Amino acid sequence: MPLPTLAWTGDAATGHLVLLDQTRLPLEVHQHDCRRLEDVVESIQSLRVRGAPAIGVAAAYGVVIGLQPFCEMPREDFDRHLAEVTATLADSRPTAVNLAWALARSTRCADDRQELDSASILDRLLEEAAAIQDEDRNTCQAIGRHGAELMPRGAGVLTHCNAGGLATAGSGTALAVLFAAADLGREIEVYVDETRPLLQGARLTTWELTRHGIPTTLICDSMAAWAMQQGRVQAVITGADRIAANGDAANKIGTYALAVLAREHSVPFYIAAPRSTFDFSLACGNEIPIEERDGEEITRGFGRQTAPDGVGTWNPAFDVTPAELITALVTERGVIEPVSGQRIAEVLGTDGDG
Amino acid sequence: MPLPTLAWTGDAATGHLVLLDQTRLPLEVHQHDCRRLEDVVESIQSLRVRGAPAIGVAAAYGVVIGLQPFCEMPREDFDRHLAEVTATLADSRPTAVNLAWALARSTRCADDRQELDSASILDRLLEEAAAIQDEDRNTCQAIGRHGAELMPRGAGVLTHCNAGGLATAGSGTALAVLFAAADLGREIEVYVDETRPLLQGARLTTWELTRHGIPTTLICDSMAAWAMQQGRVQAVITGADRIAANGDAANKIGTYALAVLAREHSVPFYIAAPRSTFDFSLACGNEIPIEERDGEEITRGFGRQTAPDGVGTWNPAFDVTPAELITALVTERGVIEPVSGQRIAEVLGTDGDG
Repeated sequence: MPLPTLAWTGDAATGHLVLLDQTRLPLEVHQHDCRRLEDVVESIQSLRVRGAPAIGVAAAYGVVIGLQPFCEMPREDFDRHLAEVTATLADSRPTAVNLAWALARSTRCADDRQELDSASILDRLLEEAAAIQDEDRNTCQAIGRHGAELMPRGAGVLTHCNAGGLATAGSGTALAVLFAAADLGREIEVYVDETRPLLQGARLTTWELTRHGIPTTLICDSMAAWAMQQGRVQAVITGADRIAANGDAANKIGTYALAVLAREHSVPFYIAAPRSTFDFSLACGNEIPIEERDGEEITRGFGRQTAPDGVGTWNPAFDVTPAELITALVTERGVIEPVSGQRIAEVLGTDGDG
Repeated sequence: MPLPTLAWTGDAATGHLVLLDQTRLPLEVHQHDCRRLEDVVESIQSLRVRGAPAIGVAAAYGVVIGLQPFCEMPREDFDRHLAEVTATLADSRPTAVNLAWALARSTRCADDRQELDSASILDRLLEEAAAIQDEDRNTCQAIGRHGAELMPRGAGVLTHCNAGGLATAGSGTALAVLFAAADLGREIEVYVDETRPLLQGARLTTWELTRHGIPTTLICDSMAAWAMQQGRVQAVITGADRIAANGDAANKIGTYALAVLAREHSVPFYIAAPRSTFDFSLACGNEIPIEERDGEEITRGFGRQTAPDGVGTWNPAFDVTPAELITALVTERGVIEPVSGQRIAEVLGTDGDG
């Protein structure tokens, strides 16, 4: 990786966040600086930074950036701004729970240190963001280690969207599993769904996999079923944006179809995600808010109009895969199989920070 | 329709074929002239003209164009060129059987009239092409009439690729059903899969449906399953490129996935096709040749590179839906339900021209 997905540069009071701009990949490797809260919000909304864990890390740094103007204020005023900043960041995208989870950690970090002045709290918030980033790196490694054992030797493995290093602060979730399997000599070949409308698979996942020297075949989303029917796919693995207490998992639109198709073809369907993607406040998946995005992502997605003026569109960014279609959940604390609320609670715990 | 999908202009010896160039829709309505055999072959291969019935009509006119230079020759030489011209056209695309079917009609038309000279045969070949075109127009109407009864009032109906007027010489196959249902006041809403990689749904089907005033919602292919899960879809209907004797049907890649997903959601799945799309020489679908097209359709499909250099691709243009996933076949001779070789033979007959 020539540049990290996210990096902080400078101190808490004057530093800023540097993102690898994912809207420009794979043709341009461009650093995008975020020096104001609006920059961070815009970067999350426009998917310059994306992927549930990476959004969480970006939001934690966004809290620091958003509070820089107020670090000379009395704590009471600073805390009021903290509430406003976290609310703004929380609203930037609705589905990935890692965003809310990271903001809750930042808020708790400040709440627990009422004796410190604003400038000191800002330092602590930067430390907390860096800690979230560090933990995510380790989490990715652990997910990879646990999941690699599930990948059969010589398997064709299908993945959707991007659940790689670009979606996290480390090596990814689903892709961490594939990288670890390749490192174990499992000789996998990866089929990558291009992932319309924004082509995260075509643009980002193929970029990561080919850089790691893993045999990679790009297909259109509509080809996945036929690839399974033709015996090319022995496992499917994706990431997730939010997983309810019962194991129902929201992920990039198209994931639900893959889960249904995998079961039809007796192919195991795995989801790899850190504990921070689990939302124990939601009993099941139909409580997960599903972001709907602008229809122009479909009609003008490539800098060129590809549908008639005025046609109606429906552009849900995520869907929900019911737990019963998920063969196993791969987390940093181990593989959860079969997927049930009870098994999830046993492996992950259900209290605040787990 | 401002221009017909295909039109012949002039006499047999000097006339030419005019196509509505489907690669430029919906933004440009452009006529493309085919005056040489190579023009016709290129237009079929590049999908300026596409859709199984329309390809058949284009090929029949292509025979006339290809033989114009030889219409002063003795019959023996003319017939040798006829064999070469039909072989060239037959090779232009492999999956749609209407192409071979139309070429066989042209060949038989000449074979049956050994007493005529070459110029007269050329006239007859033009009449035969026009007859194929006329019959297709009537066929579309009959398909529409039979299929409309299957569409529930107020239904959301999902379609894939383009099986409309642009794919035929008439009002289409699947779309003929939707037009007829709308004319019956069934108040349907149509969900259109954009149909990657070449976006026939986004570019062509939405264009036809909105021109007919039918409520139309464009989605990405990966959203179809979620649309079904959300209760938005009460029927799926597509066209076909070749149907084996047992009812297995090849159609645009992604159709097989829809059939599996429709069954999973208890949604009826229909295929609308003329008798000329049935290939009684093939016992089942795994004998149907599946065209694989250039991977650049996936990686550079929008005039812009959207994947890294050198990534592997797999680009099958069609898949095969097994008969048991098809609720009914809608033909010009009636609805075939349930789908079985016996029922197909009863409704359509299995001899040469039916």
